[in-house]
Amino acid sequence: MNTLITQLNWRYATKRMNGKGIPQEKIDTILEAIRLAPSSYGLTPYKVFVITDMELRKKIQATAWMQPQIVEGSHVLVFATWDTITEKNVDDYMKLVSDTRGVPVTTLDGFKQYIMGTVNGLSEEGKVTWAAKQAYIALGVGLTAAALEEVDATPMEGFDPAQLDEVLNLKAQGLKSVVMLTLGYRDTANDSSAGYKKVRRASKDLFMVK
Amino acid sequence: MNTLITQLNWRYATKRMNGKGIPQEKIDTILEAIRLAPSSYGLTPYKVFVITDMELRKKIQATAWMQPQIVEGSHVLVFATWDTITEKNVDDYMKLVSDTRGVPVTTLDGFKQYIMGTVNGLSEEGKVTWAAKQAYIALGVGLTAAALEEVDATPMEGFDPAQLDEVLNLKAQGLKSVVMLTLGYRDTANDSSAGYKKVRRASKDLFMVK
Repeated sequence: MNTLITQLNWRYATKRMNGKGIPQEKIDTILEAIRLAPSSYGLTPYKVFVITDMELRKKIQATAWMQPQIVEGSHVLVFATWDTITEKNVDDYMKLVSDTRGVPVTTLDGFKQYIMGTVNGLSEEGKVTWAAKQAYIALGVGLTAAALEEVDATPMEGFDPAQLDEVLNLKAQGLKSVVMLTLGYRDTANDSSAGYKKVRRASKDLFMVK
Repeated sequence: MNTLITQLNWRYATKRMNGKGIPQEKIDTILEAIRLAPSSYGLTPYKVFVITDMELRKKIQATAWMQPQIVEGSHVLVFATWDTITEKNVDDYMKLVSDTRGVPVTTLDGFKQYIMGTVNGLSEEGKVTWAAKQAYIALGVGLTAAALEEVDATPMEGFDPAQLDEVLNLKAQGLKSVVMLTLGYRDTANDSSAGYKKVRRASKDLFMVK
């Protein structure tokens, strides 16, 4: 069977982890995959906190129903979106495009106006939602990368965003937490989920072929 | 270099495609990856339209700024979320869990109440946003799968959702279009984007290591 499909079947939302650290090379690959994830216009309206510090993880755990993976895993990733999208954000991005491609920033004015048209058409809440969706693409890429690296990964929405924002001091950085991804290794003996058969909709119920 | 990283560098948001069809085996792999994508509680609050019919693609193109990939590609995927989340949806899911794992549905009552607690805490708009985020995880998994299969994939938000919903008769099915993924093969000669250097935030600017 295709390696990707094998690995996506292998992965599951791990509830208990065994404390084993992830080799740096594997973490580097997972983070590089996340960095390469696409986003609308390439704007990447989020940051990713990569947390190993145990004291900080304990504080994060307290905002997240004390889920054990947070301290039993190796790394906790917190995806945090910009809390708004400003013209300055877009200008900074134009500078990055200009620097990367070696073109004068003035030649990108049409592109900038195009992005600003989208941004200005969104409410403040709509901006955060749009940014969150982009972060979820990166989440999908990241968890696929983890599966290919045989690293367990648990996407987590079960936390209090306001509390987590406070723990990571996100407000002062113009950020809002949207989702976490805990990385580590399954503790098969203690994770009752480890033996569960994966539940997924049948193809005929998920895909509408036209 | 790691195959995944090589392929994520290879991919780009293809603007022009060459009309070549994707072998069934590759489509099957990409769709299976999407089917295996995780979602919150495993609820999978979306469907995916898999469209090859050219007349239908022309109608979709008309809702999407006439972007050429839609007709030049091989397959267009439209991710459409449920337009609400009802207790019936959750009951249907409990039935699927029960059937898959061979456990009486009554043993899942705690799980059901847990999901309903989340669902009931969301506004109607919040439900659709939450569902859309789950679809974006599948989008991320799907575009990674496409890259590994050396199939070009263009995520597309640039369409009129109300018009697209009408083209696909989504309202009657209790669905709302949220994002598209066009699959095909790049037309390097005609795609000015094909030669562009990929623009991504530097690791130090994207990742906050703690």
